[in-house]
Amino acid sequence: MTPSFYKEQSKFYVAVDCIILGFKDAKIYLLISKRKFEPLKGKDSLMGGFLQPNESLSETVSRVVYEYTDIEDVYLEQVGIYGDVSRDEGERVISVAYYALIDLELFNDELCKKHNAYWIELDKVENLVFDHNRMLVDTITILRKKAASQPLGFNLLPEKFTLPQLQMLYEAIYDTTLDKRNFRKKILEMDILEKQEDKDMSSSRKGAFYYKFNKEKYDSLLNKGYYFSL
Amino acid sequence: MTPSFYKEQSKFYVAVDCIILGFKDAKIYLLISKRKFEPLKGKDSLMGGFLQPNESLSETVSRVVYEYTDIEDVYLEQVGIYGDVSRDEGERVISVAYYALIDLELFNDELCKKHNAYWIELDKVENLVFDHNRMLVDTITILRKKAASQPLGFNLLPEKFTLPQLQMLYEAIYDTTLDKRNFRKKILEMDILEKQEDKDMSSSRKGAFYYKFNKEKYDSLLNKGYYFSL
Repeated sequence: MTPSFYKEQSKFYVAVDCIILGFKDAKIYLLISKRKFEPLKGKDSLMGGFLQPNESLSETVSRVVYEYTDIEDVYLEQVGIYGDVSRDEGERVISVAYYALIDLELFNDELCKKHNAYWIELDKVENLVFDHNRMLVDTITILRKKAASQPLGFNLLPEKFTLPQLQMLYEAIYDTTLDKRNFRKKILEMDILEKQEDKDMSSSRKGAFYYKFNKEKYDSLLNKGYYFSL
Repeated sequence: MTPSFYKEQSKFYVAVDCIILGFKDAKIYLLISKRKFEPLKGKDSLMGGFLQPNESLSETVSRVVYEYTDIEDVYLEQVGIYGDVSRDEGERVISVAYYALIDLELFNDELCKKHNAYWIELDKVENLVFDHNRMLVDTITILRKKAASQPLGFNLLPEKFTLPQLQMLYEAIYDTTLDKRNFRKKILEMDILEKQEDKDMSSSRKGAFYYKFNKEKYDSLLNKGYYFSL
């Protein structure tokens, strides 16, 4: 039975909106779709879904991200909650924004057709519905701050990657160019990458060795008070 | 008219819970109260309130903090959203936690009686209702991270404070002791404090000069790419 004090209160729709980011060819991409229902049907929107009674919010966001990417165990982080009275033209909806970092090699392109979705370069994103542009801006702010102190960039890369790829990722996140020697020195000194025996021969004649991120090592360093810092 | 797609969705109670922190005599205090209604009536709880239809979430949190502290323009920051299915024993309630840093000199003690509230040392907090302990732990984690890179500690101090006071504040936040000379050197080098002409004579015979935090200067340094770092 609902306690009487609660009964006097109002209820609200609660939704999640997901800023799903991928990285390819030195650029960061955002997954968006054409809205399937009114209001603003056909306009560009982040991927979202409504909270269901039997779900925790983290279950909702995992469900939504899985539905649109077909990938489980995605790196997810809360961006914030957006609760302005008129933020959704349809009805009062409280939205919780999360960003998801995915490895595009695991993404199933067939899903885009099904959901009327597409990947767009971050730089080319224009008007999204409601406050979705603000959610995106807030995400980039958080991502830039976090990527400098936590190794979350690796979530955007395949399991095996090269140092030039890693550098391009950080250059894309910060929209800047980094000095190659400094970057290599800094990242290798952290001693959280494992050099592989094989090379990527696609981008240069000499080739570039593959590396893997060693999360166990990073976690154990973290416990000793060591921090990732780029 | 509510669009038809929305109508199929469920609605939820949405509340805010506030972690209201103050600083006094080298210790950080949390404002809690005895719950006034069921479930868990009489148990220790954070200060909270329900979202109303005419309010944005930030208006709700400002209203709640003002109601319990009588202070306007309080430093507020989102901690996160807590959406587990059974987090509230009374009903499904989605709660957004915010922390507030207030200057205890501005706090009106009369309010405590009115709200059955009291200040408790952080170290002495025991069982709070629902997931309020988790909200508090998450707050401390965020506060420690932020206080090292942003000058938010000043929100917990009176407008004029001494360097020993400031050091005690940071020692309380990090639950550690800091070297006096290093701390003074570091904080003064940032050049964001304004030395006053008068002294606090209450804690030592020599006295300690008062300082004020110069927010304009800090903001202008921030725009030049300078960061607060302790």
